[in-house]
Amino acid sequence: MAKSMSLLWGAGSPPCRRVMIVLEEKKLQGCKHKLLSFEKGEHKSQEVLDINPRGQFRRGVPSFKHGDLVVNESYAACFYLESQFKSQGNKLVPDSPAEQALMYQRMFEGLTLYEKLKAVIGYTWFVPEEERHDSALKRNKEALATELRLWEVLLVTFFPTVATLFRFGLSAERYPQLGGYNALLKDRPSIKASWPPHWLENLKGQDNLKDI
Amino acid sequence: MAKSMSLLWGAGSPPCRRVMIVLEEKKLQGCKHKLLSFEKGEHKSQEVLDINPRGQFRRGVPSFKHGDLVVNESYAACFYLESQFKSQGNKLVPDSPAEQALMYQRMFEGLTLYEKLKAVIGYTWFVPEEERHDSALKRNKEALATELRLWEVLLVTFFPTVATLFRFGLSAERYPQLGGYNALLKDRPSIKASWPPHWLENLKGQDNLKDI
Repeated sequence: MAKSMSLLWGAGSPPCRRVMIVLEEKKLQGCKHKLLSFEKGEHKSQEVLDINPRGQFRRGVPSFKHGDLVVNESYAACFYLESQFKSQGNKLVPDSPAEQALMYQRMFEGLTLYEKLKAVIGYTWFVPEEERHDSALKRNKEALATELRLWEVLLVTFFPTVATLFRFGLSAERYPQLGGYNALLKDRPSIKASWPPHWLENLKGQDNLKDI
Repeated sequence: MAKSMSLLWGAGSPPCRRVMIVLEEKKLQGCKHKLLSFEKGEHKSQEVLDINPRGQFRRGVPSFKHGDLVVNESYAACFYLESQFKSQGNKLVPDSPAEQALMYQRMFEGLTLYEKLKAVIGYTWFVPEEERHDSALKRNKEALATELRLWEVLLVTFFPTVATLFRFGLSAERYPQLGGYNALLKDRPSIKASWPPHWLENLKGQDNLKDI
């Protein structure tokens, strides 16, 4: 089954890691993975645009194919894989209504956290220099900090976004629950298997988030 | 079952309409609905904050409860309702892998469209006056127009966002497929049942999108 699957991915992208982790959890390790270089613009290559017409900045990946079926929204790929391989590997959707309600709720709150993370670490990527304001970046950082305090309380989150927070300098002293969660999950096999190669090569990340 | 459900909603909000339409499709008309006024700030009231700690601008709704279970992310509520009431009302998740892949893919592309819509019609709500740039609004409009051309081709979209596009002045002459889709669906019972009251009272909307 997994042999008819392929994934185009970019290193360090939380949406790509979501799909990679679900592939591991569902025991679909046979899926062909192809790493694209953001630096070389490979995520905007014709190969990607043929599958994903958006192909804009960091949006060309993940591009997942199963036979002729294309699913390139990361959440869509996760739902599709769980739905198609319900009884294979780990069951990712719980049975009880209460657990299901919580799981769906947190899953979509995770997107909110990711958007607020992008508004800080992606500020200089997405906003042209002449339109940037210190006040906007400050507000985005405050919004992210407010959101993080909710997650500190909830202590339920999505690992790829959390790993990226710490990669970009978040202080585990100021966010001890998130730090503990990060430490707790980073050795899980499905997560180690999706570790970005350039994070292994260069253990030091950025410090954009050190002061929030 | 529906008697133990309640929904706090705001008029004209696509996320609220998604949940309302799914409630109708699943024959859960008994759900108690309470309309909150954005103008009076009721979406930031203690009643809402108790359920939804974010409660920020237009994010306090929808707040959906089923018994003691709270689900206030609109996509989460839709997944939860379909999952819990699979055999009631209309089946919303298709069986075949190809249709499922397409459905999940479009569902999450729909979020991208909604984000790009918000970046135009919400520009003055979310960006303080001293940080606004004509160039940014122009870029956001261009990004929305590029996205819309994809949907024109795909002709698969989500009605609440489409209805809001036309409410804000989108030209059905320049986007004939979207216009036709809007006309096609607006009389479906589940959609009529969720029509925003203030749209009925005041048939004329805004013109923010008339020139894209």
